[in-house]
Parts: sequence; C-alpha cells; structure tokens
Amino acid sequence: MAGNTFGTLFRLTTFGESHGVALGGIIDGCPAGLDIDLDFVKSELQRRKPGQSHITTQRKEEDEVKFLSGIFESKTTGHPIGFTIENTNQKSNDYEHIKDAYRPSHADFTYHEKYGIRDYRGGGRSSARETACRIVGGAIAKLYLKHLNVSIQAYVSQVGHIKLEKKHQDLDLSKTEESIIRCPDAATAYKMVSYIEDIRKEGDTIGGIVSCLIKGTPIGLGEPVFDKLHADLGKAMLSINAVKGFEYGEGFNSINFKGSELNDSFVSSNEVENNKKITTSTNHSGGIQGGISNGQDIYFNVAFKPVATIMQDQQSVDKDGNETIVKGKGRHDPCVLPRAVPIVESMAALVLVDALLRNKTSRII
Amino acid sequence: MAGNTFGTLFRLTTFGESHGVALGGIIDGCPAGLDIDLDFVKSELQRRKPGQSHITTQRKEEDEVKFLSGIFESKTTGHPIGFTIENTNQKSNDYEHIKDAYRPSHADFTYHEKYGIRDYRGGGRSSARETACRIVGGAIAKLYLKHLNVSIQAYVSQVGHIKLEKKHQDLDLSKTEESIIRCPDAATAYKMVSYIEDIRKEGDTIGGIVSCLIKGTPIGLGEPVFDKLHADLGKAMLSINAVKGFEYGEGFNSINFKGSELNDSFVSSNEVENNKKITTSTNHSGGIQGGISNGQDIYFNVAFKPVATIMQDQQSVDKDGNETIVKGKGRHDPCVLPRAVPIVESMAALVLVDALLRNKTSRII
Amino acid sequence: MAGNTFGTLFRLTTFGESHGVALGGIIDGCPAGLDIDLDFVKSELQRRKPGQSHITTQRKEEDEVKFLSGIFESKTTGHPIGFTIENTNQKSNDYEHIKDAYRPSHADFTYHEKYGIRDYRGGGRSSARETACRIVGGAIAKLYLKHLNVSIQAYVSQVGHIKLEKKHQDLDLSKTEESIIRCPDAATAYKMVSYIEDIRKEGDTIGGIVSCLIKGTPIGLGEPVFDKLHADLGKAMLSINAVKGFEYGEGFNSINFKGSELNDSFVSSNEVENNKKITTSTNHSGGIQGGISNGQDIYFNVAFKPVATIMQDQQSVDKDGNETIVKGKGRHDPCVLPRAVPIVESMAALVLVDALLRNKTSRII
Amino acid sequence: MAGNTFGTLFRLTTFGESHGVALGGIIDGCPAGLDIDLDFVKSELQRRKPGQSHITTQRKEEDEVKFLSGIFESKTTGHPIGFTIENTNQKSNDYEHIKDAYRPSHADFTYHEKYGIRDYRGGGRSSARETACRIVGGAIAKLYLKHLNVSIQAYVSQVGHIKLEKKHQDLDLSKTEESIIRCPDAATAYKMVSYIEDIRKEGDTIGGIVSCLIKGTPIGLGEPVFDKLHADLGKAMLSINAVKGFEYGEGFNSINFKGSELNDSFVSSNEVENNKKITTSTNHSGGIQGGISNGQDIYFNVAFKPVATIMQDQQSVDKDGNETIVKGKGRHDPCVLPRAVPIVESMAALVLVDALLRNKTSRII
Repeated sequence: MAGNTFGTLFRLTTFGESHGVALGGIIDGCPAGLDIDLDFVKSELQRRKPGQSHITTQRKEEDEVKFLSGIFESKTTGHPIGFTIENTNQKSNDYEHIKDAYRPSHADFTYHEKYGIRDYRGGGRSSARETACRIVGGAIAKLYLKHLNVSIQAYVSQVGHIKLEKKHQDLDLSKTEESIIRCPDAATAYKMVSYIEDIRKEGDTIGGIVSCLIKGTPIGLGEPVFDKLHADLGKAMLSINAVKGFEYGEGFNSINFKGSELNDSFVSSNEVENNKKITTSTNHSGGIQGGISNGQDIYFNVAFKPVATIMQDQQSVDKDGNETIVKGKGRHDPCVLPRAVPIVESMAALVLVDALLRNKTSRII
Repeated sequence: MAGNTFGTLFRLTTFGESHGVALGGIIDGCPAGLDIDLDFVKSELQRRKPGQSHITTQRKEEDEVKFLSGIFESKTTGHPIGFTIENTNQKSNDYEHIKDAYRPSHADFTYHEKYGIRDYRGGGRSSARETACRIVGGAIAKLYLKHLNVSIQAYVSQVGHIKLEKKHQDLDLSKTEESIIRCPDAATAYKMVSYIEDIRKEGDTIGGIVSCLIKGTPIGLGEPVFDKLHADLGKAMLSINAVKGFEYGEGFNSINFKGSELNDSFVSSNEVENNKKITTSTNHSGGIQGGISNGQDIYFNVAFKPVATIMQDQQSVDKDGNETIVKGKGRHDPCVLPRAVPIVESMAALVLVDALLRNKTSRII
Repeated sequence: MAGNTFGTLFRLTTFGESHGVALGGIIDGCPAGLDIDLDFVKSELQRRKPGQSHITTQRKEEDEVKFLSGIFESKTTGHPIGFTIENTNQKSNDYEHIKDAYRPSHADFTYHEKYGIRDYRGGGRSSARETACRIVGGAIAKLYLKHLNVSIQAYVSQVGHIKLEKKHQDLDLSKTEESIIRCPDAATAYKMVSYIEDIRKEGDTIGGIVSCLIKGTPIGLGEPVFDKLHADLGKAMLSINAVKGFEYGEGFNSINFKGSELNDSFVSSNEVENNKKITTSTNHSGGIQGGISNGQDIYFNVAFKPVATIMQDQQSVDKDGNETIVKGKGRHDPCVLPRAVPIVESMAALVLVDALLRNKTSRII
Repeated sequence: MAGNTFGTLFRLTTFGESHGVALGGIIDGCPAGLDIDLDFVKSELQRRKPGQSHITTQRKEEDEVKFLSGIFESKTTGHPIGFTIENTNQKSNDYEHIKDAYRPSHADFTYHEKYGIRDYRGGGRSSARETACRIVGGAIAKLYLKHLNVSIQAYVSQVGHIKLEKKHQDLDLSKTEESIIRCPDAATAYKMVSYIEDIRKEGDTIGGIVSCLIKGTPIGLGEPVFDKLHADLGKAMLSINAVKGFEYGEGFNSINFKGSELNDSFVSSNEVENNKKITTSTNHSGGIQGGISNGQDIYFNVAFKPVATIMQDQQSVDKDGNETIVKGKGRHDPCVLPRAVPIVESMAALVLVDALLRNKTSRII
C-alpha cells in the first residue's frame, strides 16, 4: 500500500517527480461552500519557492498552481480539487553524473533497492519539490481554519548553534516574515543569516528547529487512542523531508519536571455567570490532553537535519558497489529552514482540518 | 472517524475501558501459517503488568489474555485474531471522588467536552490499561519478525536528570531485564531506582526516556511520501500515553552537525565476489534514508513526561467550573518508564510488520 | 489487506469461527450519547438464530451477546463497543469426515488454496454463523436510525418458483414477523412454507429473494463517485453468504422501459407556503439518484442461492485430488431466507448510518 | 468522507467535472517495473469516447490522456501515476436552461440538496464523463493482468427486449469489437442497432445488459468476510452511472435450482502424476466460492437503465419548487451500452489487480 495520501476525511494525495512533466495532487473531502482565495494560495507557494532570497537555493521555479476541478464560481463544490504544478526549469542533464551513483544520506540507494527502478533526475519522487503540493493542500486547509479563527504560525527558532532564547509567549510572530530566515526576533535573525552565509561559502549545509504555534483550536480535536492529535501532528511533521525529531508542549524538557510541577491546574473564569469557561493556569501540556485539544495554545518543535546535498565531493558507491566520487555541483539550499516554515504550517493545517471533520461525528447530536 | 485502529495491512483494533467488563482487540491481516507461542505472549504481558516491582504501581492485575479466534492448531489461519483481557481487580468506588472533578493533565476534561459523557472510573478509555492490548498485538508481530531475524530491544536511558551516558553500541542490551528499571547498565540502573524511590515517597512522579534499537530490518521498508518508516514509528510512539517527544537517528542533535559531518558515506563490502553488499560507514541516519530502511540499525528515543496521577492534593474544578480539590489517593506509578519499555517495543513491532506487508507489493515480481 | 471490517466512519470489524471459542466484533465510530436498548439487540439476534422454527436448521445456539466496552450507564461513550458471542453448542466431531474433503460449492477448497491452512470445523471463518456479529452491529445501527425515524424492513418475496406478486406498496409489512418464513402475505407464506417442507424431506435446499424497504431516509446520503449509496448497499448485500445478485429500484426490469417512461418527474408539494417540498411523482429510481438518496423510499432485492449444505451424498475430491464422497449429515437449513431477513436489514442499517455520518462533512456549515 | 477513491492497495482517485478545466486522476499503488504501453491506453479510451458511431452521442471529445508522473523510461516506478484529460469541446452555454431546473432522474436535485452548490454545466461531477478516468486506471490494471494471462472481456448481451440468447461458452468474444453495439453475435447485433436507431429517432433512450467474462484468474483472490471478490465486483459495477443491478454466476436464476442441482462438483485432472489439478465439473458458482476465486471462469451481468437525458420536453421543478419544463436539447446517447463495455472491463480490472495485491500477504511465505 503506497503512502501518497495524507488524512482520513480531509485528504491530500500528491504525485509527481522533480523532473517529470508536472507535480500535483487531489484534495478530497473538502466541504462544499468554502470561498477559495487564489491569491492566498499563490502567496503561500511564494513562501516555499526556491530562489526567494540569497540564503536559499538559486534554482528558479515559479511553482504556479493550476486548479482543474472542485471549485465553481470561487467556492468549493464538495468534489475533489485536482491541481497541477508544472516543472518548467528542470536541467535534467545536471543529474547524469548521479545516474548510477548513490548520493550519501539521500534516498537514491533505498529507492533503488525497494523498487528496482529509479528516476534519478533531481531525486525523482524523493525530492522536496513534492512539498509544493503540500503547500497547496495546506493553503486550502488554512482557508477553512480562517472561518473558525484558528491561526497557525511557524517560525525558525534555531539554526545550528544559534538559538532563539525567547518562547512563543514573548515573541511578536507578526514579524516572522520580515526576515529572510523567518525568525521573528531581528537580532537572532541577523545572526542566523550571517551564519548561513558562512555555511554557504563552505559549500556545506546546516539544520535547525522550526517552532509552531496554533491559536484558537476548538476543544475536542483528536481521536483516542491511536489518532491522538499530537500523534497525527508528529507524523505530519516527520513526513517532511529532513525532519529528525518532534516534540510538543514541554517535549523532551518534560523530563526535568516532577508531575506536581508539570501538571496544569484547571481554573474557571468568572466572566460569565452560570456559564463558566474552564481553562488551565499553565500550559505545559501544549494544548493537548489525553490526545485531545483542550482549547489552549498548541505548540511544538520540529528538528531538521542539514540537508544532504552539499557542494563538496563525497565518497560513495554506485549501484554495483564500486567506489565512486559524488561531485558537489548544481544549486543547493545551505539551510532549508526558512522554506520549511510554510511546509510545517501546511502540514499542521491538514491535520487540524482533518481532526475538525472527524470530530463532527463524536456525538449523536 | 474513531481512532482505535493502528496499521494498514497488519491492523490492531483495540477496545475497552479500565473498569469495564474487559479490554481486548482484533489483530487483522496477520498472514496464515505463523506459529503462535502463547507463552511468549504471556511473558510480554508480564513485562507490562502492574505490581511487578516496588517502583511500579501496586495494583494487582493479572492481565490474562484469552484468544478467541484466528488460531488453529497453534498456527494463524489468516483470519482475524480476537482476544480479551478481563478486568478483575477494579475498585470502582475508588473513583467516586473524581466523578465530577477534572484531574489535572488527565483526559477527564477533554473527553467530557468531546463526548458529553465520560466513564470516570479509572480514566475509562483514556487509561493506560489499554496498552495491554497493544502488548498482545505487538507480541504477535514480534513472532512474525522472529522469522525474519529482526530484533527490537527497548530500554530506559534516562529518568529525570539521571542519564545513561552510553550509546546503544556500547551497551549489552541482554542485561536490560536484569534490573527492575530496565536499564542495561547496572550502575545507572541503581541510581535510577534510588531516585524513583525518593520520588515515590514524595507522592510525586518523574518521566524519562525510553530508547529503542532495531536490528536486522530488511532494506526497503517505509512508503513515500507520507508514510515514511520513521513517520509511522513516530506516530506509534506518540500515541502511547504520556509521550511528549520522538527523535530518530541523531534526532534533535542533528542540528549540531554540518551536512558534511552528518552524511553517511556508502561503502561496499568485498566479502562476496560479484555480489557486493552496500552499507554505510556511519549511521547518523538511524537506519532510515528517504523514509525507507537501508538495512542499518534503526534507533530512536521516546520522551515520557511524569504521569499526571500524583499522591498529593491538587487544585482543580468540577464539570460546572466550581473549584474543588482532587485528592491524591489510590495506587500510582511513580515512574512508568520500566513498564513503557515493552509498549515501545510492541508499537515498533506493529509498525515494522505493517511495513513488511506493505512492501510486498512494491515490485511487479 | 484482510476484509473483516465494514464501513468507513461507522465500522464493524468481526472475528470468529463457527467452532472456535467465540465470535465477536468491535463497533467503532458510534457517536456518543446513544441509548442502548439491550433487549432490542437480543430480539434481533433471536430473529437470526438457528432452531427458531421447523423450516430452519435444528441446531440449538443461543447466540447470547456480551458487551464488553463502549457503553456506560446504558449510553454509548463514543469509544469502541467490543462484544462476544460464545460458541456453546459445537459438535466438532461432526466434521471429522470433511477434514480433508472439499464440500461442493463451499469455501473449503478456496480457503485451503488461499491460506494453506483451514479450520474445517463447521466451515470455520466461512460459516454463516459470522453473520450473528453483523446482527449485533446492525442492531446498534438501527437504534441510531430510530432517532431519525428511518425504518428498514426486509421480507421474503420469493422461494424457488413461489413468488410474492405484490409490490411493497401493496403489502402490510407489519405482518412479516407473523409467519415463520417472514413473508408478509399469509397465502404466499403458506405456500412457501409447504414448499420448504418438501425440500427438507428431500434433504435438499432452495433459494429465493429477500426484498427490503427503507423509509424516511434523509436527502443527501451517498458519496460520489465510487461510494454511491446503492453501490455500498450492493456490496453489503453481496457480502452476505449465498447472495448471487442485487438490484435496486426497478433493477433488471429497468431494461423494459424507455427513458421517457422510467424517468421520475419532480413535483412540488404546496403544503407549506414559501417552503415547497420537492418530491417525485413516481419512484422507479428507488430513492437514489446519482448515487445519493432523494428522500423517497429505497427498495431493493437480494437473490440467495440454495445453500450448499445438503443432506445427500455428493461426489467430490480431497485435498490431494483423490475422489471422495461427501456425506450429507448433521443439521442443515433447507432454506435460509427467513433467517436472512434480519441480516439484510442489519447490513442495510450499517450502510445507512455510515452514510449519515459521512454526510455530516458535506458542507462547511 | 468523500468517495472519489476506488481500491485499497491498487487505488484510483479521480477528479473533474464535465465542463471544468480538466478531468484526471491518480493511480497509486501500482507496483514498480510494469511496462506501460501508451498506445494501449489510448485505444481503450477510443472505445469509450463519444462520437464513435452513429448510435452514440455525437459530441466530439478526443479524450487525450496526458501522464504526468510515475512512469520513467516506459516503466512504472512504484510512485503515483498522475494524469489529466482536458475538456476541449465544452459548450457550457448549452446548459444555461437547466441552471436552476432539476432534470428528471439526474443528480441535479440530490447534489444541490447535499452540497448547497452545484456545477450545473453538463452535470458537473455527476457526468459519466468521469468514467474516462476509470478507463485510464483500468488500462493500467489490464497491463498488469496481461503479465498474468488474465483476460477480461465484456460485451452487450441485451438491449431493451432484444436479448442475446447464447451464453458466453457459445460465443466468440473476439468478434465483440466488430459491431458498433459490441455484441459478439452478428445477427443479434444487427437487431440491437436497428432498435437503437428507432429509439434515437423518438428522442428516447433504452437500457440493457453488459455481460463480462474473466478468464485465467488465479485461485485465492478475494478477502473474507466483507471484501468477497464478487462483493467488490458488484460495488465496482454499481458505481458506474446508470447501473441498477448486478448478478454473478447463475445470479438471480439460482433461485430456479435446488442445492443438489446448483452445487459444482469438484473433480481432479489426471494430467500430472502426483500433482493433480482440482477443478469443478460445472461452474454455476461463476468462478467464486466463499468469496474467493477458484480458478474457473468468472462471469457476471450488469443491468443499465435507459439514460435519463432524452430529447423530449419533460415536466419538472426548479430549485425553488416552481414548475418548469426541461427541454430536450443538445447531444445525447440513445443507448450507452456500447460505450459501457470498456467501463465494465476497466472496473473489473481495478478490482482484480487490487485483489491480487491484497492476496500477496495471505501467507507468511
């Protein structure tokens, strides 16, 4: 069973290789009647596209999405939304040198062993170019979430050793897009960009952390026992290229607390007589308890390794096991973190909308 | 859509509340002809059961599994394997005091809001008692993996601030079961147990990390692009009660490497003429590249928070928002880590067998 | 991928062989808050159980269902409903003679070839005894439908050459349960019973048709394009043992009409000012248009072949291909139609509730 | 949950409306290494396309498929195969008159009620134009089946009252494509065509039966208990526009046999010493026993009603319930049967390949 579909009720299926005719996908299960703002979808793609700044790859791809179905007079019809993104700037000849060689820490070897055949051009199906389709699906999901005043904001909180020390509560996330690294703190952003410039000059790459904050989530999203909201978020993030770790709420840091310190006390607002709103005085849980959203802020971290494509020669073998050198050439991302920000948001949006739809059948009324 | 099924081809569906008549489940998709060693299944349940040592809860539950179908003359028939585990030691009256109160950082509040009804006795469906069913499913999966010489070994690598400094390569994992905390290093295990004894006396709880090592995985498991092997492992782990984080390979530590440092070079063994075996000289990737197993060791970490049930009074509210005190009484686990070890292994086994079956259709031949 | 689960949102997974420890299942996805009337579930099982009259098998099985989870204080909790039905009257020795022989038109041969192993006792998993679990799932579904005033009534409309000439419009379906054959027309019922008595004496079997009428279905159930409501109903019926055909609305008889004759004109009721109710003047469509319910009566026919177990000696081969005689012995149903009536209703109920839940996400509001 | 995906392991998801930008789909789960013969895919589309003869609609649509991914150097790669079929001959203005009117026995009313919005042009998503995508998926499936020497041949066996009296055993199915009605018997074909010409002159439509024969199916396909092979075939056929009934093997005619007459005796061929091949002396079962293929010929019938679009004025209502006349204009199919033949084959091919892949995990070895 192939794994190109994400979600259960709100489902994105993607197709396409980096050097094929086109990428694309089908968004199925989107409820009818949703206003589709095409400019918003385009602006989301702009945030992911290559060549958007000097610290990302200089490949020029316009990533223009074409919707083929499921939208009528600017509204969703309840039918599948098909879309394509054409490949227009492929330089397939650039990849002749790796036709038979396995690039270190890429999917070349595992794909070849699994399928016995491999589209070697630009990584084929394993290319992160596939995430453009996730942006399209995520943008539609975000439009749905807007109706419900749910916001998703991701940002870069660490690049190599350079760490944003402030927590989300102390940040103005509206400033995220002001820096090319998408870190909302100007001073830290400056350091990150300088560091990436150095890494670039070395022909090397560096990883980091994307943090994400979700505000306004209704209470009740997530399904016991296997499809806990954070389990679905975790899978969504881990499915993004180069991700090595996921934590939510206090995450790995939870280990440094005792239960009595980490538990979030329930408190009641007295705002409305006879209709007390229950909330928590702290939010170590990260907005999810027992796998179900409790209405507080959801926050999580996603760890990205440095991408495997570097501008240096590397020792490797070819498909017959003979030693070979993989040359570092072409165009590369010294650090994918700024382009990963909208991808993290998109995957989170897909998870949330799916959870929202699933929750519609929790009660008989 | 409810979330009580795990897996796509090898599927475990569980049911049951901690104080209902019985828990149980159905394992569907297990290939026919597998020898079922019932003693092995029982021994796995023993590793999870409460009351197994003085650092776990003193509840006495025998967790006896009864198989109802799908096994004939000690072999699987290809048909669904139904099983039950009866609840025999419930003291439901112990829970009258929380009938209307929301225990901090438990699922009481979110379940009530989601469903409008809640079996409050012992946490109902949200109780970790449900994981006994995962052990049964995982044990069947392990029997399948044994055929293929795949081994899964988890162990406790951190409890609070006490950390096992050695990596899996430097440990003798056959010693894991020798200590009640399931840490394979005797000196560290001793410290962990002492620390948990202190925590217990305080009526408090503490979390930690379970690490897991998988050896012998065939090349090719995992499905692009959403069902990457590590994404499915991550979801599996995050679906376990009290888990807050997951990382594989170098995980969050990947951030401290440059691409040139983290990439794993491919090398070729010369053992067999004309049939070179391709492997990697390092294994920062953690045995998975492009979401697909490459035949090297798979290793990952799972972060558990301290469990929410503590033996201290806690401030909270009831379902009407009125302030109340949740008393700390009953029997509790000061640290669930030792009992979590077989659960982590079980979930990993479910993921691997599912991936193995899915991989059977990768090629036409 | 095994096929023991039915439904997408309201899901029944069954397990169990006719001579194993127990049969049972899990109903997952039932919304919380539904009142469970256990007596109703029992009464439904009574309608299917063997030995209920002299024209059905004389096997005595009580088919007592035991609910294990998912119901709290007589209401569903939104969690999986596990249940078992113990096997108490097995005479496994009765089946020693077919241990290695393939009964004609049974699943013995195909199961053996598919799985390489076979529980030969009473047909094992292929036994129609499995449908007792469908009755339990269907009964829960019916309780859900009662809330919405949807009724499902099946009846026997043909046994061999004896055919009920009246259509559902001309029948009083409240009389169905008055005859042991479950035909609502007394005169026809009498003929059917007499005929079955003759068939029984011959040690033979006979098939027939179960018709089904569903009233009160809300408009909008069914999902384009593959999960049309009648396609899901058809699959549900065809999954019942011994079913060979399915038709809905005018069915095969549609061939005898021209389009101008078969089309159902839309008309509008003037009952309510400014809120006209749209209906159709005829209902050749059978309540479903474009795969979606239109609010009119849904009706369909299900063809059952004579069951394969006869009380006569039959020529066959054993698993090695050697000729053998399969003796006609034991207890058998000369005609399963009366017992099939509640099974048809149950499967229809499962389909409808699933469609109802799926329809909850058709629109954004 | 939307219903635009067919299959579990070999999956076709389609999108597109008759007057949108394009239709298309994704074939996911096709094993790697399959040779793709594009000319064959095109020839299959030719068999379905409108305007192929004077007894089908005179709309001119070329139905050119464009593959976008998943095929590399003429072989499948194991990755999703995306494809589009552009809409080039839409005359959307033709449909202004039904913008607010509900055409009798079409999906206009039910779609509007379900979604609150409707692309009225040419039926939108409910148009049978969607089946072009099924042809593409079916063609890929057929290429897979060719490897295994499985053949699927459908043909028209009845149009209105004109019935092909011969059974499949007595027909030369290689002659099916010789007549524009796709009936392999020349004399009957002639009568059918004449009759359709008359119907066409009346501006009316007529239905009929498509029969299908599958030869060479391996033993063991189909999954107990809900996903019986014939249940999946039935659903596949019932999901095709205008289908009202399905029967396999003796089908509804089974009612006219006693069990002793209908049972198929097992016999053993003596061809090979010590390796006897087990077969049946008759094949009333239609090649499927207990829901699993037994290696004999699979045969079934599919009933199509006359299509709803007629060239006559019809009484109806608009969306506000006001009376209106739906004019008969545009281009229509007096009888869809000849164009339905390749659709029936395609859906059968999808079912068989899915069953083949599912069967790969039936046994541990």
